Amino acid sequence: MVEDLQERFSNTIKSSKRSVIRELLKLTQRKDIISFAGGLPSPESFPVEELKELAVEVLNNDGAMALQYGETEGDLCLRKTLVDRYQKEGLQVDVKNLIITTASQQGLDLLAKIFINPGDKIICGLPSYLGGLSAFRSYGAQLIGVPLDDDGMRADLLEEKLIQLKANNERPKFIYIIPDFQNPAGITMPEYRRKKILEIAYKYDVLIAEDSPYREIRFEGISQPMFYQLDNKGIVITLGTFSKTFAPAFRMGWVIAHEEIIDKFVVAKQATDLCTSAFLQKIACLYIQKGLFDKNIKQTVEMYKEKRDAMLKAMEDYMPKGVTWTKPEGGLFLFVTLPEWMDSEKLFHRAIQNNVAFVLGNAFFCDGSGKNTMRLNFSFMSVEKNVEGIKRLAEAIKQEMNEK
Amino acid sequence: MVEDLQERFSNTIKSSKRSVIRELLKLTQRKDIISFAGGLPSPESFPVEELKELAVEVLNNDGAMALQYGETEGDLCLRKTLVDRYQKEGLQVDVKNLIITTASQQGLDLLAKIFINPGDKIICGLPSYLGGLSAFRSYGAQLIGVPLDDDGMRADLLEEKLIQLKANNERPKFIYIIPDFQNPAGITMPEYRRKKILEIAYKYDVLIAEDSPYREIRFEGISQPMFYQLDNKGIVITLGTFSKTFAPAFRMGWVIAHEEIIDKFVVAKQATDLCTSAFLQKIACLYIQKGLFDKNIKQTVEMYKEKRDAMLKAMEDYMPKGVTWTKPEGGLFLFVTLPEWMDSEKLFHRAIQNNVAFVLGNAFFCDGSGKNTMRLNFSFMSVEKNVEGIKRLAEAIKQEMNEK
Repeated sequence: MVEDLQERFSNTIKSSKRSVIRELLKLTQRKDIISFAGGLPSPESFPVEELKELAVEVLNNDGAMALQYGETEGDLCLRKTLVDRYQKEGLQVDVKNLIITTASQQGLDLLAKIFINPGDKIICGLPSYLGGLSAFRSYGAQLIGVPLDDDGMRADLLEEKLIQLKANNERPKFIYIIPDFQNPAGITMPEYRRKKILEIAYKYDVLIAEDSPYREIRFEGISQPMFYQLDNKGIVITLGTFSKTFAPAFRMGWVIAHEEIIDKFVVAKQATDLCTSAFLQKIACLYIQKGLFDKNIKQTVEMYKEKRDAMLKAMEDYMPKGVTWTKPEGGLFLFVTLPEWMDSEKLFHRAIQNNVAFVLGNAFFCDGSGKNTMRLNFSFMSVEKNVEGIKRLAEAIKQEMNEK
Repeated sequence: MVEDLQERFSNTIKSSKRSVIRELLKLTQRKDIISFAGGLPSPESFPVEELKELAVEVLNNDGAMALQYGETEGDLCLRKTLVDRYQKEGLQVDVKNLIITTASQQGLDLLAKIFINPGDKIICGLPSYLGGLSAFRSYGAQLIGVPLDDDGMRADLLEEKLIQLKANNERPKFIYIIPDFQNPAGITMPEYRRKKILEIAYKYDVLIAEDSPYREIRFEGISQPMFYQLDNKGIVITLGTFSKTFAPAFRMGWVIAHEEIIDKFVVAKQATDLCTSAFLQKIACLYIQKGLFDKNIKQTVEMYKEKRDAMLKAMEDYMPKGVTWTKPEGGLFLFVTLPEWMDSEKLFHRAIQNNVAFVLGNAFFCDGSGKNTMRLNFSFMSVEKNVEGIKRLAEAIKQEMNEK
């Protein structure tokens, strides 16, 4: 091997690390560990039987096209079907506003690729989805964090940051927001806050990237309008995915945006992976058209609600005083704040000894804060394991407290 | 929409254009057109019946894992199976040297992502696969072309470029080579030339990226050793794919390289699309293990040989004097050189009128040369259409000549 290999890598890759979450996931794969660490949907939610039939149907009907290269924009049938669904929700959107991506992680990668020059500023919530932060960082973005309150990203602090930037003659490329059941915080942004943030975005002339992987997993409360729907100037770019509502292995997501922006996504995707699997797109399209998506998501939501309820009740039952957590109306996660002095990394190793795992909240804070926080996933484990795991975790926290 | 949208895009996306090939493909989708333009495998080569059974088998055996997120490195079963095949070919390679990618276009994208800083130099053949060039350009690479002769990239001219760069205290990040049935030129590099280029790479301390999508599609002649096999210092990064030998819609490729390099591919892939479809990987793994891959590729090679033979014979029969072409031993393409004064873009529009299409050779030359060349694909159309299409194309060329 060349001696100075490490020196030859690109600047962005030199400064990136393996995803903390994915590396921790490996640690937590021991059978006896109850893991709240991943962001995995429950395998019980996978429509295995239906997929067997649909795979055969697609190959019977359309084998030659299903196995061939597809258009970069995505399978037209699937694009139309998704557009139909959005139109029914009241969105002004057309097929020319939608591109299929290889899951929404690719949406984030392409978003970064088309907008970010090294050193560009991106605004994101404190905390925010790590996969988004990694994608932006991998193009050399400088991330500016804005704290959340119970209604999501704080509008006043966002405006403060934008004023500061403007004073330096700078403008962020976009504001990254996960409005529904935020990952990791589990918070949903109410309509008034969305409108306020949109107003600020207009005022300071900044685009908004709306990441929306969980929107359809709502247990209770009223659905809030999407940023894309509230926006009448075409400044919102929205990312969707089937990973949490259908099957992660389909690696299928989409982006909706102004057609001039979609055009750049197409150019970027051509150089990145040419096209997403036509075979899987055609299966997904049939799956929606036959009403199986709606039927299955209803069952999934019921199942996840039970799991969330069990976890929340166990938190109430077992967590010591000084620990607080969010009560998500949907999604896959709740977010826990430990006493300020407690280090969740230290706790992690004790938790592993107690056969329970979580993700360090710290990983989601672009400014390195959040050392006393953790994210818990409630969708993957069973109701019983959610309860038992919280019991073990509470035990580990109490041990930490006792040793303080 | 914001007024200065076009100004807000990243520098690399501002300078990229939609892929010429993919845009031309759209022009050539009229039913009456015989298109030699795409790089599409023949739908007759797709193992539709086998895939129906395998899809069901994978979902029966392993639905929960097959539909879940998979490891970024790829499905272990598939990785081991691919490593086995390479070991049988005599390569020193282990699972830690291999990562699964979302087809080899992603391999090229990640290769660029982990090595290229804006302004970095990459050496590529004149001509070279456009998807490679686009991927490198999308990270701001500066491409340096080295002409090919009948044995592929010219070693003397390569060394000349490296000497020039060294004089400026510069070193390219890697040399991009497609050694077998080169796209677009259809040339195979003999062992002596591979050794010579490897020797130069050692001397000037440069990495080699070996793009190998067609290697298994050999009609005649003797298989030449891979660069990866000849290299004993770990400087070769090899890209493989199932797109031409199995099904493009599986979007499945792989990279083999020194483990420190694979480690960076993993980090980059985490930020790019997290993982490749476990469902499709598990199908592909079974497909190989059951011997279906070897059986099918044998039939495909026979079919493509017939198609190539028919096209070459038609070229002999119909092409006017002054037109020359390569005689590929395998792969999907042959490359045509027109008289120097002839502009293949002008010819393209006449050809479309004659209901035949090709790809402008010019798109494959990073220095803008090759205006009198074109690439012809012989795998997608039938034997009869290959003959009829060449007849039409020869007619169009003669018309151009008559109007000179």
